[in-house]
Amino acid sequence: MTHNKNYTLTELAEVLSLTLDGDGQCEIHGLATLSGAGPGQLSFLSNSVYIDQLVKSNASAIIIEEKFADRWSGNKLISSSPYVSFAQATQLFDKSPAPKPGIHPSASVDDTAVLGESVTIGANVVVEANVNIGDGVVVGAGSYIGESVTLGSACRLHSNVTLYHDVSLGANVIIHSGAVIGADGFGFAFAFDGSKSVKVLQLGSVRIADDVEVGAGSTIDRGALEDTVIEQGVKIDNQVQIAHNCRIGAHTIVCGCVGIAGSVTIGKYCIMGGGSGAVGHITIADRVQVSAMSLVSKSISEPGMYSSGTLHMKTSEWKRSSVRFQQLDSIAKRLKELERSTDKD
Amino acid sequence: MTHNKNYTLTELAEVLSLTLDGDGQCEIHGLATLSGAGPGQLSFLSNSVYIDQLVKSNASAIIIEEKFADRWSGNKLISSSPYVSFAQATQLFDKSPAPKPGIHPSASVDDTAVLGESVTIGANVVVEANVNIGDGVVVGAGSYIGESVTLGSACRLHSNVTLYHDVSLGANVIIHSGAVIGADGFGFAFAFDGSKSVKVLQLGSVRIADDVEVGAGSTIDRGALEDTVIEQGVKIDNQVQIAHNCRIGAHTIVCGCVGIAGSVTIGKYCIMGGGSGAVGHITIADRVQVSAMSLVSKSISEPGMYSSGTLHMKTSEWKRSSVRFQQLDSIAKRLKELERSTDKD
Amino acid sequence: MTHNKNYTLTELAEVLSLTLDGDGQCEIHGLATLSGAGPGQLSFLSNSVYIDQLVKSNASAIIIEEKFADRWSGNKLISSSPYVSFAQATQLFDKSPAPKPGIHPSASVDDTAVLGESVTIGANVVVEANVNIGDGVVVGAGSYIGESVTLGSACRLHSNVTLYHDVSLGANVIIHSGAVIGADGFGFAFAFDGSKSVKVLQLGSVRIADDVEVGAGSTIDRGALEDTVIEQGVKIDNQVQIAHNCRIGAHTIVCGCVGIAGSVTIGKYCIMGGGSGAVGHITIADRVQVSAMSLVSKSISEPGMYSSGTLHMKTSEWKRSSVRFQQLDSIAKRLKELERSTDKD
Repeated sequence: MTHNKNYTLTELAEVLSLTLDGDGQCEIHGLATLSGAGPGQLSFLSNSVYIDQLVKSNASAIIIEEKFADRWSGNKLISSSPYVSFAQATQLFDKSPAPKPGIHPSASVDDTAVLGESVTIGANVVVEANVNIGDGVVVGAGSYIGESVTLGSACRLHSNVTLYHDVSLGANVIIHSGAVIGADGFGFAFAFDGSKSVKVLQLGSVRIADDVEVGAGSTIDRGALEDTVIEQGVKIDNQVQIAHNCRIGAHTIVCGCVGIAGSVTIGKYCIMGGGSGAVGHITIADRVQVSAMSLVSKSISEPGMYSSGTLHMKTSEWKRSSVRFQQLDSIAKRLKELERSTDKD
Repeated sequence: MTHNKNYTLTELAEVLSLTLDGDGQCEIHGLATLSGAGPGQLSFLSNSVYIDQLVKSNASAIIIEEKFADRWSGNKLISSSPYVSFAQATQLFDKSPAPKPGIHPSASVDDTAVLGESVTIGANVVVEANVNIGDGVVVGAGSYIGESVTLGSACRLHSNVTLYHDVSLGANVIIHSGAVIGADGFGFAFAFDGSKSVKVLQLGSVRIADDVEVGAGSTIDRGALEDTVIEQGVKIDNQVQIAHNCRIGAHTIVCGCVGIAGSVTIGKYCIMGGGSGAVGHITIADRVQVSAMSLVSKSISEPGMYSSGTLHMKTSEWKRSSVRFQQLDSIAKRLKELERSTDKD
Repeated sequence: MTHNKNYTLTELAEVLSLTLDGDGQCEIHGLATLSGAGPGQLSFLSNSVYIDQLVKSNASAIIIEEKFADRWSGNKLISSSPYVSFAQATQLFDKSPAPKPGIHPSASVDDTAVLGESVTIGANVVVEANVNIGDGVVVGAGSYIGESVTLGSACRLHSNVTLYHDVSLGANVIIHSGAVIGADGFGFAFAFDGSKSVKVLQLGSVRIADDVEVGAGSTIDRGALEDTVIEQGVKIDNQVQIAHNCRIGAHTIVCGCVGIAGSVTIGKYCIMGGGSGAVGHITIADRVQVSAMSLVSKSISEPGMYSSGTLHMKTSEWKRSSVRFQQLDSIAKRLKELERSTDKD
């Protein structure tokens, strides 16, 4: 996290491993969108959809692909992947507060906890017995680290995160505020006869691999007998619910408000669109994409894009379609009948 | 916040600016629904649907429109907007605990923070460097106020709220427990080839205008380059997710469990129904209403009501309709064919 | 909560009230699924779907129904309800940290709070005035207990739970981290003319009966005038939103990500599937089951299973069906017309 540093284009070209075409002495103090950029700001063209915005941009320089380079007459940094280069550039211009290694006096850290080098423990953090915290870990204020939790090196827990006992995180894991990892999976021997349900204590835990990010307010439940597993590089947005015994494959993207029921296995490089869901005990193959607010109601064995639901309409028209949806089986049968009778003629 | 005070109807008529028709000495100690009210309680008729409950009500007085006044023979307070008058009356009978201005000894407030008059900082609150807190602000126990946050006057943060660095709130903003404002937007340069995704650090923040309310467990992410903006008077219910770079127009109502993807602009006076959603990078016009659990899958340019999904049915019948939905294109084509062939005859 | 204890099958048969068929001296140190079990582990067959896994299981013993007993030649514990017996067995092998009764020195407990016997108050917990805490209650670190809250005996609040003022919990209630009980219901007299909305202060509270469990990040709002009520034995999963004035009937199961709008009454022994919802001011009868991500859009008076939405499809095919859905009223009318004209022939 760097503060208020300016870079010349020559410096940026070097740090980002890009080819400079333009004035190397030009100073850049920040990043902006094509339309929002002003003097001293660097922008980027990552999608040809925005190419018309180039001509109106006041950016001092643009990260751009070679093939579009002649569309911009100003300073440019040539990149084969402008969005990746832009993402790398955000690390240079980030002004978020730098952690101050050390243990805040108001934190409660159990004597048996093992802390690595350069660890930052914020105010009111609670670290229970037998916790193991790797080098360079930052734990935000008010977070709770349950007994026997393991945090790999360089993990970043923001404020008010909760990790139940025995949860383990790999290296470079980021957990945002309000997230809860390792709460009890939803397991009961339900009684429907007036007697009490019996709680199935959840004896497994949650294992999260390296480079995973978990968004604000997301929840990942501990397994009933075995662990819930989040594989390497999975990115989970806000308010996602992952139930017990799930396994989310490496590098899969889980957008906001997704709900995954128990014992679901999702493959690698999948994309669960915002608000989508999956019913329990199914398997989703690698490289499956599920569109926003779609429900996966049985296993998917082939890669590809999947959807459920209907498109939005004016409510007055939607009502008519919806009523007809209820008659759909009858409509189909009547059509069949008509085909038969017409055929007979 | 007033404790256990009784009001005569004469007093209520004056405070609420209503016309009294009845016994001005009648003492009122609380509010209740028409069906739940007993002696000493004030009720209201805000919707003619409930007019049949009038005759059975045991309320000591009713807030009612002139046009329905002859339907209630008891004490009445005549209002042109009974629901608004009722809302105002709730402020008189609220018994919620009054804040006790001062800084709780267990709070950690950075020396550089600037606090206004009559500020209440609860137990275990953390206030980071360069925070600016307006007059009369109340911060509930366990809340975290990140570096350089600004809170306008009379803001109310309930317990266990998290505000990341640089977030700014206008005056009279209410944030409920568990809400997280300013967590990182979900931005990555994703790699689908086995290499690591690159995180796009989120350099913008969140700006919330005056009179906004944010419900429990809701999350509003910081912008990637520019700020996520919530305009004046927006009311956001619980467990809502608003992604980075969104702009929610003034006075819009966002019901519970709504999910808004990134870079969505919603107009003024919209209503996003419970559990509804919007895909990313679209614009929704002013005065659009989206019904519960509907997905807005492209921009909407005209005011009005919109819906998606289907009506609930018995599952056995729904299954038949759902299977037919999968055949719908074929059904439509066969119908067309039949029309053609019949026409030919 | 028991630590690392082994049991012989004779002991297990006695504790679980099951009939042993096999080697009573066989030592069991843990539980596992049929496929995951190794020597020293006990498994169970609760569903005949898994009967083929029996032959390959390395479990040292199986909890099994009499009627399937001949399918397993090893040690067995005969149960009329293997899943219930398994649930009971999880209590024997749980290794979660045992609470340590007492008040953590960093907790802030108001002098007027009344605490029962053997209460555990974790680090940084805040207990406000006039709170009443029953015997054996455990409150996790960072939780906030508002003024005049009542907690029945043996309640378990995990870390970072928030209870607003006046909330009452029966006995044996479990609340997971991040849950917020008693935040303001979403009530406003909305103005659509440029004036300010008027907040309806929420004067009711939340009453939760015995044996209820509330999952991580779930929210239950306080009532506007009367209380929101969760009846006995209701089990609520993670990230559920229950709005003001709802009543959830005894023993009903509310799966993850469910959203219930205001003033909904749900009967006893219902199951709200994951991500399902209900619009406001409706009543759902006893023993209704709503499938995953279905919306209940009007009252349901008969027990049974209900669904809405559509099945997932490949997106390319789904698009065709979705466009046809928009034409559905026209399709139905054209079919009718065709039937008429054909009939006339």
